[in-house]
Amino acid sequence: MLSTMQDAPLSVAQVLRHGSTVHGRAEVVTWTGAEARRRSYAEVGRRCAQLAHALRGLGVTGDERVATFMWNNAEHLEAYLAVPSMGAVLHTLNIRLFPEQLIHVANHGEDHVVIVDPTLIPLLTPQLAQLTTVKHVIVTGDSVDGVEVPDGMQVHAYEALIAGQPTEFDWPEVDERSAAAMCYTSGTTGDPKGVAYSHRSIYLHSMQVCMTDGPALKQGDRALAVVPQFHAMAWGLPYAAFMIGASLLMPDRFLQPEPLAAFIAAEQPTMSAAVPTIWQGLHLYLEQHPQDISCMHDVLIGGSAVPPSMMHTFEEDHGVQVLHAWGMTETSPLGSVARPPAGTEGDERWHYRYTQGRFPASVQARLVDDAGEVVPNDGDSIGELEVRGPWIAGSYYGVDAPDKFQDGWLRTGDVGSITPDGYLTLTDRTKDIIKSGGEWISSVDLENAVMGHPDVIEAAVIGVPDQKWDERPLVAVVIRDGADATVDTLREFLSDKVAKWQLPENWTVINEVPKTSVGKFDKKRLRSQYSDGELEVTRV
Amino acid sequence: MLSTMQDAPLSVAQVLRHGSTVHGRAEVVTWTGAEARRRSYAEVGRRCAQLAHALRGLGVTGDERVATFMWNNAEHLEAYLAVPSMGAVLHTLNIRLFPEQLIHVANHGEDHVVIVDPTLIPLLTPQLAQLTTVKHVIVTGDSVDGVEVPDGMQVHAYEALIAGQPTEFDWPEVDERSAAAMCYTSGTTGDPKGVAYSHRSIYLHSMQVCMTDGPALKQGDRALAVVPQFHAMAWGLPYAAFMIGASLLMPDRFLQPEPLAAFIAAEQPTMSAAVPTIWQGLHLYLEQHPQDISCMHDVLIGGSAVPPSMMHTFEEDHGVQVLHAWGMTETSPLGSVARPPAGTEGDERWHYRYTQGRFPASVQARLVDDAGEVVPNDGDSIGELEVRGPWIAGSYYGVDAPDKFQDGWLRTGDVGSITPDGYLTLTDRTKDIIKSGGEWISSVDLENAVMGHPDVIEAAVIGVPDQKWDERPLVAVVIRDGADATVDTLREFLSDKVAKWQLPENWTVINEVPKTSVGKFDKKRLRSQYSDGELEVTRV
Repeated sequence: MLSTMQDAPLSVAQVLRHGSTVHGRAEVVTWTGAEARRRSYAEVGRRCAQLAHALRGLGVTGDERVATFMWNNAEHLEAYLAVPSMGAVLHTLNIRLFPEQLIHVANHGEDHVVIVDPTLIPLLTPQLAQLTTVKHVIVTGDSVDGVEVPDGMQVHAYEALIAGQPTEFDWPEVDERSAAAMCYTSGTTGDPKGVAYSHRSIYLHSMQVCMTDGPALKQGDRALAVVPQFHAMAWGLPYAAFMIGASLLMPDRFLQPEPLAAFIAAEQPTMSAAVPTIWQGLHLYLEQHPQDISCMHDVLIGGSAVPPSMMHTFEEDHGVQVLHAWGMTETSPLGSVARPPAGTEGDERWHYRYTQGRFPASVQARLVDDAGEVVPNDGDSIGELEVRGPWIAGSYYGVDAPDKFQDGWLRTGDVGSITPDGYLTLTDRTKDIIKSGGEWISSVDLENAVMGHPDVIEAAVIGVPDQKWDERPLVAVVIRDGADATVDTLREFLSDKVAKWQLPENWTVINEVPKTSVGKFDKKRLRSQYSDGELEVTRV
Repeated sequence: MLSTMQDAPLSVAQVLRHGSTVHGRAEVVTWTGAEARRRSYAEVGRRCAQLAHALRGLGVTGDERVATFMWNNAEHLEAYLAVPSMGAVLHTLNIRLFPEQLIHVANHGEDHVVIVDPTLIPLLTPQLAQLTTVKHVIVTGDSVDGVEVPDGMQVHAYEALIAGQPTEFDWPEVDERSAAAMCYTSGTTGDPKGVAYSHRSIYLHSMQVCMTDGPALKQGDRALAVVPQFHAMAWGLPYAAFMIGASLLMPDRFLQPEPLAAFIAAEQPTMSAAVPTIWQGLHLYLEQHPQDISCMHDVLIGGSAVPPSMMHTFEEDHGVQVLHAWGMTETSPLGSVARPPAGTEGDERWHYRYTQGRFPASVQARLVDDAGEVVPNDGDSIGELEVRGPWIAGSYYGVDAPDKFQDGWLRTGDVGSITPDGYLTLTDRTKDIIKSGGEWISSVDLENAVMGHPDVIEAAVIGVPDQKWDERPLVAVVIRDGADATVDTLREFLSDKVAKWQLPENWTVINEVPKTSVGKFDKKRLRSQYSDGELEVTRV
């Protein structure tokens, strides 16, 4: 029996329409290093219409891909909204990809247009000749002076292109399951793989960002989006903010601790989102340059596990609550969020907050062991996390990856346990777990334990070959300048925190843990540094 | 271009699965008049599986309708979840319908099974012989003693029927656009008309109930659902509570102020939802029997406009914030919610809260004038409200109603204005507005003005024929026992509150405003009482 409900599609155009009218007074604030430029959502709405008309004029008439090679700013927000609303597909290019990866994803995605920030021209132009489908390069701002493009490509200044275009656009009604935006994973193995989000998945995910069991973004919030717009859609903040009437604070290219602190002081965000390394850097800066950042009631942290010590630091030193979350490009990315159950207090509450959190109703989760069997959610049984739901990827764009998808579930590559009340604790990536004498050692648990030492800035743990045990942990640790900690004192510090057989005997003191293009620990690089003999290892 | 997202349907089964596991410790609490009976969501989940198996055994194998004739309680919640999850269609029968209406809707909906509360047997059994499609009557509780059903119908006791059934059920995957539940409007004109909600509409609406621009229901809330489950799906609270992990407090048949106050004292709800008359009754009771009800941070009030005086009373006398909302059976029912913009204070804040509120991104709204033209959202222009969205009805079940639906929009029959920032103020129903000498007078504005007088319990205003002006307002007013107010003092009270030409000259003092089956002012009955000469009218 059919329902009698209207057949109204979930669409990015509806988010744009709503945000630019009902929430027309909210604003996107872009930092310029010294001050902010501001644009109301009403104005963003008008400029989105102008951008869409301009893109139509460049031949974007169907589902052509319009790529962005940009920082987080007002123009990137306009592309986020206008491109899908006109029926085309936004492709956010990761500015930190290696040249050959960039060429691969732009060609694989068949990008027709690239919108680029003037400061990023030097990173893009050397590759342009190899981008076989790109016909137009749009440079944000007023000028294209000195920008060279290959024959057959045209270059345009963003402001000149949209100036004079009509400020209204008759947004087409789309099939909600059609692609709205693409993002390629920054995968540390193989070519980056594309995830194509649908209008439906973006819309539902935006609702979740505003739900009480999600980040609970609300009207009047001032959301500091540090997480890049080229990284898993800035965790959905731009769309959710437009949907709910929260203003967006965009740091542009000013992501170092000092300008970030200045931006916070000037614009008083009420919430923020970024990977742990950003917050770690900010914390170290604030130690030297004290500043009140307690305007932020919550900071959403994901991308890597958050060390409990960082959560305590932010809450106890800065009055900022860390909301630990888990997700990935393939999950739009909002998976679980560590809101503790109502009524819990003290240590119990902290215990829940250390976990990766609880999934919302829209994301089903299960754990699967080595034998392919589903293990119970009893808080003890360990398995690989698999997830399912309307904003979870079911395939990659244009490539087969049967090892990542099975029976309608996404295999996340993360390993952990789930409690009966749904709290996920990840112990490792399947590829990072250390198999020592038939037992598993979680590299993440060891990292957190080491990072709990006050003299440690960061620490990464990898498995290294061992004749007796197959694999044993190696700790690569960054010690604070001038601190007294040594390998011996750190090992002593661990002795009552991890089981004796897990105590690492291999240590290396380094200046910085190598990071991937999105700021995660790059253990692949650490492993090759180790096997190439580049690390000075102490055995204790 | 297709997206790469999973094709995961939005379904009631997913709400059931999530609530009964992740939120298995939340509970449904049913009041018995003196104490509460409790059932965890985990147990509800097991009993839903048992109910589904039992219904399969009664021939519910496809999209058969399973009707309920019940109060708000744990078993009604089970029917809400189990029936749609098994692929059948829940039909909530309004226990306050007149017999001929009840017969009409049960036959029109082709109900196969009716689940009935033992206390409601006397209202149902006289009609059973005329229910042509009903094959099974299930009486909640342990006993069917004394229940007579016609030949060809079987009667079952709910507990005996589900006892021993398996506590797990392999919920089928449904098309999310298929019908999950039906509710007939209580329409004061013509036969009640059926709205068939889809799995998709119920799911999306549940998300909205948990969004920060909606009621913002959250994990750990204790939601007192006074609004009947047979009335617009109890405003979506049962599904939303299960989705988010809020406990449900169900008053069963104890809806009078005294037992409601006792239930509140015993179970400490954190939020509630009901029509204004319930709160008006509770307030009068609490004047005589003081009690702290400030455990409720919010009460959601809709169904009729809330007089501003009541909002102040609840906030200032009881410490309870009234959240004014607008919706109807055809809108699932959540339309607008009067959350003021962040940062507003004092009178400005109150001014926003008096309105019917703001629509979420999922509900588009427009105003259309007498000539069929869309009028601007400028806060002044008046028109009939039309709405559109994924949980808005696009037709009625099995009947044509071209006057209610046009161009994909629902015509609500409500008249009002919308501000540029999206706040709706309804001035009247199209059929209730008073057309006096070519000008419109809002019956609702007059009612609110009269109800602002401390001696007035309630007041309804209708248009009555007038030789000179075509129509003039008649005020039917209920004055508090022992109060001094008279028609003259009330008219004097109005003199500085409404324009002189709107001042009513026709008054009648009555004992109670007649109500519809869902507690709204029944102006149709008031008009017939007037035209039949049953009202004693004073002309001043």
